Parts: sequence; C-alpha cells; structure tokens
Amino acid sequence: MFHRVCIVGTGLIGGSFGLALKKQGLAREIVGVARRESTLRESLAIGACDAATSDVVEAATGADFVFLAPPVGQMKATCQLIAPVVARGALVTDAGSTKAQIVRECEPIFDGRARFVGGHPMAGSEKKGPQAARADLFEGATWILTPTPQTDAAALSQLETLIETLGAKAIHLAPDAHDELLAVTSHLPHVTAAALVHSFLRSKSENPLVSQLVAGGWRDGTRVAAGSPEMWRDISLANRDAIGAALGEMIGELTHLQTTLERRDEAALLRWFEIAAQERQKH
Amino acid sequence: MFHRVCIVGTGLIGGSFGLALKKQGLAREIVGVARRESTLRESLAIGACDAATSDVVEAATGADFVFLAPPVGQMKATCQLIAPVVARGALVTDAGSTKAQIVRECEPIFDGRARFVGGHPMAGSEKKGPQAARADLFEGATWILTPTPQTDAAALSQLETLIETLGAKAIHLAPDAHDELLAVTSHLPHVTAAALVHSFLRSKSENPLVSQLVAGGWRDGTRVAAGSPEMWRDISLANRDAIGAALGEMIGELTHLQTTLERRDEAALLRWFEIAAQERQKH
Repeated sequence: MFHRVCIVGTGLIGGSFGLALKKQGLAREIVGVARRESTLRESLAIGACDAATSDVVEAATGADFVFLAPPVGQMKATCQLIAPVVARGALVTDAGSTKAQIVRECEPIFDGRARFVGGHPMAGSEKKGPQAARADLFEGATWILTPTPQTDAAALSQLETLIETLGAKAIHLAPDAHDELLAVTSHLPHVTAAALVHSFLRSKSENPLVSQLVAGGWRDGTRVAAGSPEMWRDISLANRDAIGAALGEMIGELTHLQTTLERRDEAALLRWFEIAAQERQKH
Repeated sequence: MFHRVCIVGTGLIGGSFGLALKKQGLAREIVGVARRESTLRESLAIGACDAATSDVVEAATGADFVFLAPPVGQMKATCQLIAPVVARGALVTDAGSTKAQIVRECEPIFDGRARFVGGHPMAGSEKKGPQAARADLFEGATWILTPTPQTDAAALSQLETLIETLGAKAIHLAPDAHDELLAVTSHLPHVTAAALVHSFLRSKSENPLVSQLVAGGWRDGTRVAAGSPEMWRDISLANRDAIGAALGEMIGELTHLQTTLERRDEAALLRWFEIAAQERQKH
C-alpha cells in the first residue's frame, strides 16, 4: 500500500488508474494533477483522487508513487519538476504510448533520487477525460513494462505485482522493441484511419453525396481517427522512424494490390483476401 | 403484395429481406434459393422463406418479384437462367455491392420479359449466413437504386415504395457514380483493412510477440478484413478502375504523411490529425 500517490494527468487512463487503486485499497491518499479546471473537478467527482491541483510540484511532494499520464510531449518537463520533490526511493512509472524517447530522457532524471520504470498500459479508447474512466479499464489488458539495465529490480517487481492486482497482464520489452511493435499494432492503424478520412474528404470536395454513402466498414476503419490530434502528433514524432518504416510496408502492400488488380489476377486476389481474413479471425 | 417472391441467396442480406417482407406482410409465398444444404435448412428454420431449393429455375418460375443476392460473380449467369421463367413483367432487383458491370450485363437479359432495377441495400456486417439475418436489418439503412434510361418508371416507383416500407431510405445514383463513390466509402476501407493485416503478418513473421500487442485500434481498423474473400475478390474485379484510383489517393495520403514525418513538421502533423478528427466526428 502506498502512502501518497500522485497521478499526473487524470484523464481516461490516469482517472481509471486512480479508481482502480482505490477499489483495491492500494493507496492511502491520491493527489490528481491536471491542467484544466474541469478535469480536476470531474476527477474528484468520480472519486479518482482525494485531492486535485494544477500544481504538479505541490502534488508530487512527498509522493512514494507517481503515475505519469500527461501528454507524451510534456513527459520530460514533468519529470524534471517532480524529481527533486518526490519521497526518496519513490516508485515512478508512466503510461506513455511510446517508450524509447521517454525512457531515454526520463530515466536519468530520477537517478539516485527515485526509481523509474517505463510502462504502457494497453487500454483506452477514442474517448477522453475522467468521464470515460472506469475502475476495471485495466482488467484483462496487456501492460507493457520497458526495463533497462539501469532499472531497479525491486521497483520492477513491485510494479509488476501492482499491475497484476489490477487484473492486467505485465509483459517486458526493451523500449526500442516496444516502439517498433506498437508502430505496427497501434500507430499504423491510427495514421491509416486518418489517411482514410483524408481520402474521403478529397472525394467529398468533388461530390458531397459521398457523405450519404458512409458504410459500416468506413466507420470501423476510421474510428480511431477521432482521437486526440495533439496526442497523435506527439506519438508520431516520438516514434517517427518506426512509423515511417510501417508506412513504407503499408504503401508496399497497397501498391502490390494495385498491380494485382491491374493484372486482373483472380487467383492472387482471392489468396490475398483469404490470408487476411484467416489472420484477422484469429484476433 | 407479391404472390410469389424468389430470393436468390438467402444469406445475411437475402435472409433479412425475406424476414422483413414477412414481417410487413408483403409476400404470399417466398421461395429461397441457396447452394448449400445448411443455408437452405437455416433460412427455412428462421422463417426467411416458405420453401427452399438449390434449383434457381424451379424457384423463379412464375415469380412476380425476384430479389437477387447471390455472389456478385454469379449475377449474370443467374439472370440468364431466370429470365425465361419469371412471370411476365415481374419486378427484378439485385443487392450487388457493385453496380456498373451488373446493370450493364443484367438489364438487357430481362428486356421485354421482366423489369430489372439495379439496387444496393447498404446494410450488413462481417457476419454471414441466415443465422445473422434480422427482420430490421434495413431499418434506417440507405438503399441505393441505380436506374438507367431503360428502367421502367413504374417498377422503380414500386421498388422505392417497398424499400421505404422496410424502413430504409432510397436514393438514386447512376451505376458508374455508385461504383466511384462506394470505392471510397466501402471498398477502399475494406482493402485497406486487408493490407493492414498483411503488414501485421509481415511483422509477425519477424517477431511473433506482435500478436500479444494487438490493440483496439488495430481490431477496429481491420474488422472488415474478416469478410468473405470470394465476395471481395468479385467486388475488386467488378470495380477495378475506381478501386485502383482510390488506392492511388490513399497511397498519396500515406506518402504525404511519411514526408511530413521526415521533415518533423509539427504544425503540419497537428493540422493533419485535426482535420481527420473533426471530419470523423461528423459521421
């Protein structure tokens, strides 16, 4: 059990984390941090924290556990602010959707003061804010931890136990491996959804009727494009190389399909759709 | 009210159409046609038809209304079989997902014998078969009709009334315009979903861990790839040119994003994600 938990960013992920800690009785006191007044008010109202403030230094002072869920682009600055004030030896983890840059930048900031372990709970949706938070958000979810040779073994083990208490499954990946794999399973689907919307917009400018013909497949395929533009700008920049490589693969697949269509190769087309359908049905 | 309705293909769409006609009391007798014994049995069991047979000529003989929902690739051959046996002046429509080729090939087959109107009810899902059929599948759906200068005005009007009785909204498009617009709102999202699965498979062959990191965005973005490979081969071939053009647009969008990432153009990235999010939220 933690004495004073500080949650930086009490949106969907941070708010759900607060609710889950409370439900499991793992925190004596939780202080939530958010920039917006409305987020602070709502995170208090749903019971995700006991106190809420926009002052991250005040909130982190004396904390023995810090959960960092601010926008990815603010992670480094947040760590610089809190490192001098957390309790000595505090456990610090984050929920950033990219890991290589965050771990490279944040881990050294806590060196000798607190114990940082990079993490990424794979939970969430296109919904935002504490209103969407749920105590069971992490149940059954995969929670990636990205230890390095510098990671404190006891901190890693403590965090892993906590994650499993919340019903999630902890797996370990090197920060770089995390980013390469997530580029394929999360970032590419996101930017592809956004690109589908842009293609649609281009058609709409030529023929507005296209809006009346939106089908279920388009809605499914573009759903995540409704997510936070700031978050996706930050993720794209932080994982630029791996996303660029995944985009290259995707462009290759689409070009291959174009060629197959031009050749009217029925057998190759059928095989291509069959392989995709079989693989999709496994997940 | 029709005396004898023949539904060719009693899967999700044909089965739902039978259930909807029954619910509205619009058919004295419905004869269902399917190739598979199990589909025939199930469509009878759910009450989508009163009789079921694999013999399309037998089923269509004397029918005053024929609803064609076979695989797109079998549409022409089906029309050639039924045209000589349907009741004189029968109303014939289809549910094919592409229209230019079907209308061009099928309309003349019925000339002087029956009245053909091309159609495309925009309903359905990745589910298949009569088990997935629902009497309310068409409620609130857009149902595209693709009349030509040869279309019988009374037949068009009769079909439109029927469609509205089923709770769907009928809109008219030229067959070519249908295919160009659907390439953007339905076919491109489908082939993109399949391409995402192929990209994923390529990564999986290098690192099987990728399977454990499948996120909600990937599941949404690839959902329709689980659909019938035969159907999508047929749609791709029937709408080859428009899908090829839509693929070109999509490749252009993804290439543009790659360049923006390489330039680390934060403002352009944010704007690109913002435009996509705003447009997606409208649909």
